[in-house]
Amino acid sequence: MLMHEKGDWLEARIDTAIADKTPPKPDIRKMMVPVGPVLVFGASNFPFAYSTAGGDTASALAAGCPVIVKAHPAHPGTSELMARAILKAAAECHMPNGVFTHLQGAGFEVGRALVEHPYTKSVGFTGSFAGGKQLFDWANQRKEPIPVFAEMSSINPVFLLPGKLKESATELAKAYAGSITLGVGQFCTNPGLLIGIEGEELNAFSTALSDEISKTIPAPMLHEGIYKNYISKKELTLSQAGVATLAQASSSETEGQGAAALAAVSGKDFISNPLLHQEVFGPFSLLIRCKDKTELQEVVRHLEGQLTATLMATEADIEEHKELVELVINICGRLILNGVPTGVEVCLSMQHGGPFPSTTDARFGSVGADAIKRFVRPLAYQNWPDSLLPEALKEINPLGIWRTVNNELKK
Amino acid sequence: MLMHEKGDWLEARIDTAIADKTPPKPDIRKMMVPVGPVLVFGASNFPFAYSTAGGDTASALAAGCPVIVKAHPAHPGTSELMARAILKAAAECHMPNGVFTHLQGAGFEVGRALVEHPYTKSVGFTGSFAGGKQLFDWANQRKEPIPVFAEMSSINPVFLLPGKLKESATELAKAYAGSITLGVGQFCTNPGLLIGIEGEELNAFSTALSDEISKTIPAPMLHEGIYKNYISKKELTLSQAGVATLAQASSSETEGQGAAALAAVSGKDFISNPLLHQEVFGPFSLLIRCKDKTELQEVVRHLEGQLTATLMATEADIEEHKELVELVINICGRLILNGVPTGVEVCLSMQHGGPFPSTTDARFGSVGADAIKRFVRPLAYQNWPDSLLPEALKEINPLGIWRTVNNELKK
Repeated sequence: MLMHEKGDWLEARIDTAIADKTPPKPDIRKMMVPVGPVLVFGASNFPFAYSTAGGDTASALAAGCPVIVKAHPAHPGTSELMARAILKAAAECHMPNGVFTHLQGAGFEVGRALVEHPYTKSVGFTGSFAGGKQLFDWANQRKEPIPVFAEMSSINPVFLLPGKLKESATELAKAYAGSITLGVGQFCTNPGLLIGIEGEELNAFSTALSDEISKTIPAPMLHEGIYKNYISKKELTLSQAGVATLAQASSSETEGQGAAALAAVSGKDFISNPLLHQEVFGPFSLLIRCKDKTELQEVVRHLEGQLTATLMATEADIEEHKELVELVINICGRLILNGVPTGVEVCLSMQHGGPFPSTTDARFGSVGADAIKRFVRPLAYQNWPDSLLPEALKEINPLGIWRTVNNELKK
Repeated sequence: MLMHEKGDWLEARIDTAIADKTPPKPDIRKMMVPVGPVLVFGASNFPFAYSTAGGDTASALAAGCPVIVKAHPAHPGTSELMARAILKAAAECHMPNGVFTHLQGAGFEVGRALVEHPYTKSVGFTGSFAGGKQLFDWANQRKEPIPVFAEMSSINPVFLLPGKLKESATELAKAYAGSITLGVGQFCTNPGLLIGIEGEELNAFSTALSDEISKTIPAPMLHEGIYKNYISKKELTLSQAGVATLAQASSSETEGQGAAALAAVSGKDFISNPLLHQEVFGPFSLLIRCKDKTELQEVVRHLEGQLTATLMATEADIEEHKELVELVINICGRLILNGVPTGVEVCLSMQHGGPFPSTTDARFGSVGADAIKRFVRPLAYQNWPDSLLPEALKEINPLGIWRTVNNELKK
């Protein structure tokens, strides 16, 4: 409702009639309208922020769409409690019946049936690449294809440039140990790749980070599925040719506890092995040692789309690595300078989304009010009298929203 | 460049750093950036406005994307002349090499290879449903799926409500005869369905329109493929159960000339025969006679997505048919009151696009400056110093564009 009052996402455009033209120009007024019922899949790693009452549900309701939630089987009770709270609030606010529906189901059948239902007009999902891609394929194979906004996988590369490392290798190592192990590495913006150019500075960073990672105390992961997946993917990565284990948080893994780990590989071995380009979901990071600037750029050319990319760099480093910055812009949705990618501020300027496979649609994001735009479409009214037009398009602007009138943005 | 100066499509969002918060809030600044190389398929029915130098090419270049045009085989010479003019202009404006590329090819192989090329990031197309859907499928089956903006087929239903018909059946018939046969019916907004409720008023309209259509002089269609397709689809429609031919423009068809025709069918027969829901591209329209208001609404529920829908109605008709208006909004991108759908004004408020199968993505349109939005994606800069930020995001707003700064829209 906040955005509706503000009127930004309504994107009202008005071109008034001009009768003395030959032929006369029509009066055309355009605004955003809801796409229809939105199906939301609860995320396993965010039982609150990206599940039943999370960002997808909120932005679909804000767009004016009814929502159907398919609860994540890893937290059915939490989801049920939230669904009841939403239904209670909807009744108290006199929202229409059916504005919110909640379904449970452990297998894929419920989800598939919901994606394929002709009434479903859009899908929001946060989870694995396999899950998101499957929903995307089902949605596109429908008689009437529908968009799927799946936020799937991202290894969030961090570029450690020499000038910056020289200044503060130890501080950077401490900050990154914290980011890699934050929430037992279960943030979708977890920094899974650290990329630098071989040299003293990178060695100092590597040593300091290994120390930090070794000292980490393993903690329970969100559920068994995530834990098992972490163990097997980590083992697979560590067994690849040229991959050296730099640090392991504890020698004996406790069941369900995600022990942090750090490994290293050369730029050459990384480039030639696509398995290393995939996400290891958990407190794990791979340090890529490039032999020079050219190999560093070559590594970027081999990376897939990412939610975030981070540059640890001085202004002189940025000046020296202009081509690198250009290449990195092409593969990410958020570009951080001298910070950590974990921690996603919920604000209008946030972009939480990026080129495939980090999401299925880089043109939208799932955090902040612009996420509402996923669930609206433009509708133009031609030659309607003021009395019959929606409030957003009436001449006197009764909602007091920003509108572009005859190419001029005004209130 | 106009839009860039205006800054509207850049959608700059700025949330400044707040250091005294716990934890401190980051400085995040978001703007739209080009998606990458855009592939444009020339339209057969618009050799100028939607081909080589048409709307798709213009909006992709305006977004900052290089363009690869696959010329339509129906007008290779026109396309070649335009391509040369564009290349000359690009050189004179010192645009980078490769900003525009032009390819010819009669078969589907060239188009398919271009859609599947890993460098291609988006596709624009105007043409048949079969063609657009095929491109959409190839694009989604890529390792990295890419969006396809295909404007494919629309029968542009026109609802003739009783009050309005009573006022002016003859005038409406004249106006619609003109719209049905405009450009030998080769506009994508050609009104292919006329829908009314049985009664005196509809009979008067039907008689007057039949007279007008019979008097039309057949004219050459754009090319042989369109002509042959028109003849076969028209014949197939006229041979369906319950379909009566009301008027044919000439008894002997001249090769390549599109003779106008009008047919009628009951609401019941229309609803039960999906073949009648498909586009007959050319100067043809089908009049659906519904037995009452309920059947009229049932017809709308059976219609697929459309570029446009038109209501011929008095204010009293609109009041009387509120549910109809709600249903019609769900299936179209532009809703015209008391006008004809042909004639697409190029302005910011235009929406030329609608739910599937009229296009592959109802959230965007191909006419007017908002068409640029198809080819951009958001990129957020986090914690960058002002000196390193793009012009659009610098603190002093050197471009003088509209930006949302800390939730306030300002210049």
